[in-house]
Order: sequence, then structure tokens, then C-alpha cells
Amino acid sequence: MPTVVMKFGGTSVADAEHCLAAARRIVQAKLDGNRVVATVSARGDTTDKLYEMAYEIDENPSRRELDMLVSTGEQISVALMAIAINKLGHKAISLIGSQMGIFTDDSHGKARIADIQPGRIEEELNAGNVVIGAGFQGVTVRAEITTLGRGGSDTTAVALAAAIKADLCEIYTDVDGVYSADPRIVPNARKLDRIYHDEMLELASMGAGVLHPRAVELAKKFKLPLCVRSSFNNTPGTVITEESDEMEAVIVRGAALNSNEAKVTVIGVPDQPGIAARILGAVASRNVNLDMIIQNVGRDGKADVTFTVMKSDLPDALDACNMAAKQLGAAGVTSDDSIAKISVVGVGMRSHSGVAEKMFRALADKEINIQMISTSEIKISCVVGEDRAADAMRAVHDAFELDKPENERSYSGITHIPGAFPEEH
Amino acid sequence: MPTVVMKFGGTSVADAEHCLAAARRIVQAKLDGNRVVATVSARGDTTDKLYEMAYEIDENPSRRELDMLVSTGEQISVALMAIAINKLGHKAISLIGSQMGIFTDDSHGKARIADIQPGRIEEELNAGNVVIGAGFQGVTVRAEITTLGRGGSDTTAVALAAAIKADLCEIYTDVDGVYSADPRIVPNARKLDRIYHDEMLELASMGAGVLHPRAVELAKKFKLPLCVRSSFNNTPGTVITEESDEMEAVIVRGAALNSNEAKVTVIGVPDQPGIAARILGAVASRNVNLDMIIQNVGRDGKADVTFTVMKSDLPDALDACNMAAKQLGAAGVTSDDSIAKISVVGVGMRSHSGVAEKMFRALADKEINIQMISTSEIKISCVVGEDRAADAMRAVHDAFELDKPENERSYSGITHIPGAFPEEH
Repeated sequence: MPTVVMKFGGTSVADAEHCLAAARRIVQAKLDGNRVVATVSARGDTTDKLYEMAYEIDENPSRRELDMLVSTGEQISVALMAIAINKLGHKAISLIGSQMGIFTDDSHGKARIADIQPGRIEEELNAGNVVIGAGFQGVTVRAEITTLGRGGSDTTAVALAAAIKADLCEIYTDVDGVYSADPRIVPNARKLDRIYHDEMLELASMGAGVLHPRAVELAKKFKLPLCVRSSFNNTPGTVITEESDEMEAVIVRGAALNSNEAKVTVIGVPDQPGIAARILGAVASRNVNLDMIIQNVGRDGKADVTFTVMKSDLPDALDACNMAAKQLGAAGVTSDDSIAKISVVGVGMRSHSGVAEKMFRALADKEINIQMISTSEIKISCVVGEDRAADAMRAVHDAFELDKPENERSYSGITHIPGAFPEEH
Repeated sequence: MPTVVMKFGGTSVADAEHCLAAARRIVQAKLDGNRVVATVSARGDTTDKLYEMAYEIDENPSRRELDMLVSTGEQISVALMAIAINKLGHKAISLIGSQMGIFTDDSHGKARIADIQPGRIEEELNAGNVVIGAGFQGVTVRAEITTLGRGGSDTTAVALAAAIKADLCEIYTDVDGVYSADPRIVPNARKLDRIYHDEMLELASMGAGVLHPRAVELAKKFKLPLCVRSSFNNTPGTVITEESDEMEAVIVRGAALNSNEAKVTVIGVPDQPGIAARILGAVASRNVNLDMIIQNVGRDGKADVTFTVMKSDLPDALDACNMAAKQLGAAGVTSDDSIAKISVVGVGMRSHSGVAEKMFRALADKEINIQMISTSEIKISCVVGEDRAADAMRAVHDAFELDKPENERSYSGITHIPGAFPEEH
């Protein structure tokens, strides 16, 4: 009998009606002949309210006590969902993190799953129960309650699916699936039927938002297929799978926009070995993550070092740079927080040339200036002015014909690189 | 170092301000040189709201899932209380039932404590932490979450105090202590400094309300002193101790009123052996608890059997009696739900005669008709019409001079029975 894990977000348990609607989906999966584990998040605003209660007492509450407090949100949800399934005449049992054997390290508020001992889950499935598991939480070997932090509920679902060797993990959300671009920016964006883990990772990291990168990474590690689909309708959704030869690698799967970064430039740095490392090291020592990094050498033997960071990290990054600039005798430090990063992603890029040029031309045609460029094997990113971000997204989306089904696209200027696929040897 | 258990009700954690006020009391107990365990109930209306959420989905939710749901109320409270103590600069840790090793049977919704393994509590106390424990909940050996039902939070506090061999268990509540009578009915009622477990049991069962009889029974079993006191001021409260020879046994400690009962009479029952047993057995088989029972034989060889039950059980009791009356050839069944039971309690009654007569005279002087009488070793109860209940309470309270300190009372008509106390032999 196949096993499926279904993940429901907070809106799915917002009230009795939503609870019963999600319960009907769960029951249907069971009636379709599956062993079913469903994970549920806290009700819409429950977690926020719980945090608020704590912060009313202390601005800086202990993380251990916060975990004790906010983990109740998911506990409430699972009990209600089990009650809803019972109401529909089916057997269900709710389990919290400790009961599911989800063991984590003791980093309260951002715990990592260390081990899952799914004995109790298997037992309940074998007894014919639907198992409703609390997302976002775990327990240490000392029986301390922990929470998994950002993306925790997605991560719980994927980790459970891996632990019980599920055939599929479905992520129910408030959108129909993963789109070729954000439909609010690109109105003719197309829902994708299928996307690879690696592509989804790039899109998820860039803020596509439907699925946390941590969960995608875990799914990739365990070669677990995910399906992102709507809680509100029966549209098939988007399947996220490991890369296979079954289908041709698509050159560009989707485009994403990230407006959360800011750019910092250290100007006129003496062009000596190790200088960039010292500047970037000074920034990293503040626990600031660097994204794109560029160094270019001017004719005067001086270099400019430019990088991007999250906007929220800009003050720390500037402070670190100003100190480093002084020590190194650099000319100065500038920054710009009205930038946006446009990226296109697709595993087919590996075997085709001319993709970057096509993207640059599309932007140039709209007179959009490119400030920075970075590329990976399956991604090309350009930083542009924030005011032109939406125009840039639409231009790129049109250029790669992302509104069309993949087999109906006809790119000019892109060449297949023979031998790039191992099986072609 | 002495160990104290402090129990706080839901109002003590109603908001940040109340939380911090209770936290200050807890910290003071620690600064006074105690090892402190505090148990906390769910916030004011949290439990009701949780039940409501469940009943919105299903009128008859599983008890197991209800326990999963409502136990979060106390979990929220303990986390917030620990945060409040931290805020005051002291070390604290919250623990839920499973973490405290409170093992119960699997009667969800009304579980009984089977065992407490306080290893973790001792460990935290030894580490200098104040332990904040969740009231009302436990865990089965299978790691299922249970709740203790009515009086559960009081019971948790007392059971914990017994398990860790605490020197005192303080119950913080919204009244100053135990009174000689309900001050809303008897304005000159006096707060008692001290009362015996047995007396408190009789008063608690009669609805004095400040402390659940289940908790008093447990305290009696473990010879554990309790103190009932106000959360809102520093009045010393009422100490509930085991009976000792230190102080003279008081004839009447307090008076209580119970208006929750109804009276049922089966009239004209053939006066044969076993008839009362058949009637009362028929009632008991409906899970109806009988309180007072009277049988009197008339001159015609027929008997009347009268008993009282909780008002909520009256329909069931009547139904059972009507069927039994038919089978036994009784003349009929009557009932009256406008009755009230007035009781006086005191261990000194054992060694004094004339107490009942004094109570009957006090009621007769006010022309209050006594419908039923029952007595135990330390209690005399009279059923009167509900419309005269308050008058009766005041009359009895005055007759026994309960408004005066115990050594200032001068009863006429009450005689000491020599030899009633073992130590007088």
C-alpha cells in the first residue's frame, strides 16, 4: 500500500470549516488506498499571538521557554484535525513531535532534525489510523521541546516522508503550484507541471516562497518527490522530482525576483592578494551572509570590491566595511539598497550556450542597466535598479517564452552544446 | 533547605501584569530560602476557548484528542510564568506533565495519578531553578497526554508536594482562605486560621469551593499541610493540617450550604427486607450518586424512602424510581428540587454531646422546618426549604458563635463527653 505525507499550512486549520475541508482531502487520500500521514501547522495567527504574550512579559524571553510556548500552536492544530477526521467517520490520531520520535539538537528556535524514530507512526498506520503530526517541532534526547525555525513545517513533512519511506510528499498551500514567475509581477506566468529539485532550490532560495529551501534540500537528499498544490481546488499542482533522463532538460524553467538585497562597494582598494578576503572576512565575521561578489581592477592599480547582502544586514555590513576600508587605505564605501536581482533557472543551461546573452539582450532592449552579473551552472542572475525590476522580469519572461509550454518554445541565439549530456557520449 | 509547592490558578496568569505579580511571590519564596516548585493552571478562559474550537468541529470529540488539545492551556501558562521569573532576574524552567514524570492511567479527561517520578524536578531544583509545572495534566506509560479532570490542578500541586516531600503546599486563590461560612451568605463569617484535613474534606465536598476534595484527600493521605491564601494580598490564609493534640478540638469549625441537591421520595413501599436496597440499587445503576438517605415506617406497614441526589441527576433518579415503584407496588414517587442542605462540621463533635440539639433549636427558633437530618462523626446536616437556606445558615452560624475566635465561645447545652479523647485515659 503506498504511503503519502500531506502537509497543510495554518490557513487549512483557520476555523472549523477549513479544518473539515482539509480533513476531507486527507480522508480521500486514505480512501484512494494510501497510508496517510498529514502534518499540520499552527492556526493562522496563533503563533504570532503566543509570541506576543511572551514579549508582553519580557522583550528577550528564553528561547527554551519560547519553544515550550509556541509548540502548543501545532499541538492545538493536530488535535483539531484528528477530531475533524473522526467527525467524518474515519480513524485518526494526533501526535506531537516527541510522540513521532522527531529528535533534534538543542538549538531552541532553530533546531535541526538529528534522527526520526517512526515506530509509533508505523504502529498507528498499521492500526488503520490516519496520523496527524505536528509540524515545526521536535524533542531533544533530554525530552526538551524544540522548534525547527523558518521553514520548519515543510521540513517536518519532508523529513517524516523520508523516515517512513513515503512514496510522495504533498505540500498544500494557497497557490496552485510553482509558477514560471510571480504572477503578481508577470501576469502571463505559467504554472509548471514539473520542476527538478535543483531548480526549485534556486527558485526557493530566491524567495519564490511556496516552499522552504531547507525542505527542498532534504527532499533532494532523499530523492523524494514533492508536490506543491492548492488547498482550495483540485488542480494537479507542481511535481518536484530528482533529475532524470525521462524528459528533456528545459533551458529555462522559471524566473525569480529578489528585492530584499542591498549592494555595498568598497572603492579604491589597493590591488594586492588577500585584500578581498580581508574585506569580505570582516563582513562575514558579523554573521552577515554575502550573496553576489564582484571584484574589478581599475587602471590605477586600485580595485573596487562589490557585494550584495540582505537589506536587514546592511548596517552591519557597512560598519564592517568602513572599518576595513580605513585599515586597508581604501578610498571609501558606498551602498545602494534600491536594487533587485532577476534570475533565470534551468538545468538545460548546462548543455546550451547563449542563454546569458539572450537575457542581457532582453534587458538592453528595454534600456535596463545591468549593475552586476553572476552565474551558476543552472542559473543566471542580474542586478538591476529596483524601479525597473518588474519591467526586467516581464522582459526576461517574454524573451524565454516562459508563458508557452516547454515544447512550443523556439529560441534564437541559443545553441545546443554537443556532448554536454553524459548519455550522448 | 525547605521545599514548598505553590499552586496558582488561571487568574494568576490572566495577563502579563498578573503573571509578573505571581512571579514576584514565587521569587520571594525562593529568596526566603526555599526550594520552590510552582504549578500553574491555564489562563482564565483558554480552556473554554479550546473546548469551543473542538465542539465547533464535532459535538462529541474523542476524549484522547480533547486531552491533546486542552493540555496546551497549561503548557502556555508555565512557559509564560517561567519567562516572567526570568524577567525578574531569577532562574526558572517550565515543565509539562510528561517532563515532571506525572504518570496516570489512561482514563482521558479524568485520569488518576498512578506514579510520580520526580527525577527531573529534583535535578532542576538542585541546579537552582524554580520549577514551574503544568497543573491538570499527566502522561501514560505509552506517552499519551492525559488530563486529570475536575480539581486537577489542585491535585497536581498536592501530588507533586507529596512526591518531592515538600514541607508545605500553598494554594493561591481569589479568596483570603477558608471561612466559617460563605461570606456572601453570612456577612460576619470569620476566616479560619487552621482547619483539619477531615473538616476541610467535609466542607470541600459541600461546595466550599476553594479547594477540591480530591486534593484534600491526597493531602490527608500524605499528612501534607496545605495553605489556602490570596493571590492578591499577604493575608496569612488558612492552614489545613492533620489532626494533632497540639490544639483543642473545636466543636464546630464551620458551616456550609449546598443548594445543588434535590429530594426524591418513594411513598408507600411495602415494608419488607431488601426493598430499600432494590430502590436505591435501581438509582445507583444509573450512575447517580445518592447523598442523604432516610427510611421511615408508617403505621400501615408501608414505608417511605427518601434520598437526595444532585439536581442534574434528578431526571435519571426519577425515571429509575418510577420503574422500581411500579414493580414493588409502591404508592408513588414525589420529588422536590427547592431544597438546601445546611451542615456544620468540627472534629470536636466526637467528644461533645448536644451539638445536634443546638443546631435544631437554632432552626426551630427561626421557624425553619427541617425536612431531613443526617449525621456523621464530625458533621451534622439538615435539609431545609431553599427559600429559608440563607436564614438557616445565619441562624446556625450565630448559634455556634462562629464569628468569634474559638477560645471566646461559650456554648450552653453542649457537654463534654469524658474519655472521648484517647489522651484523657
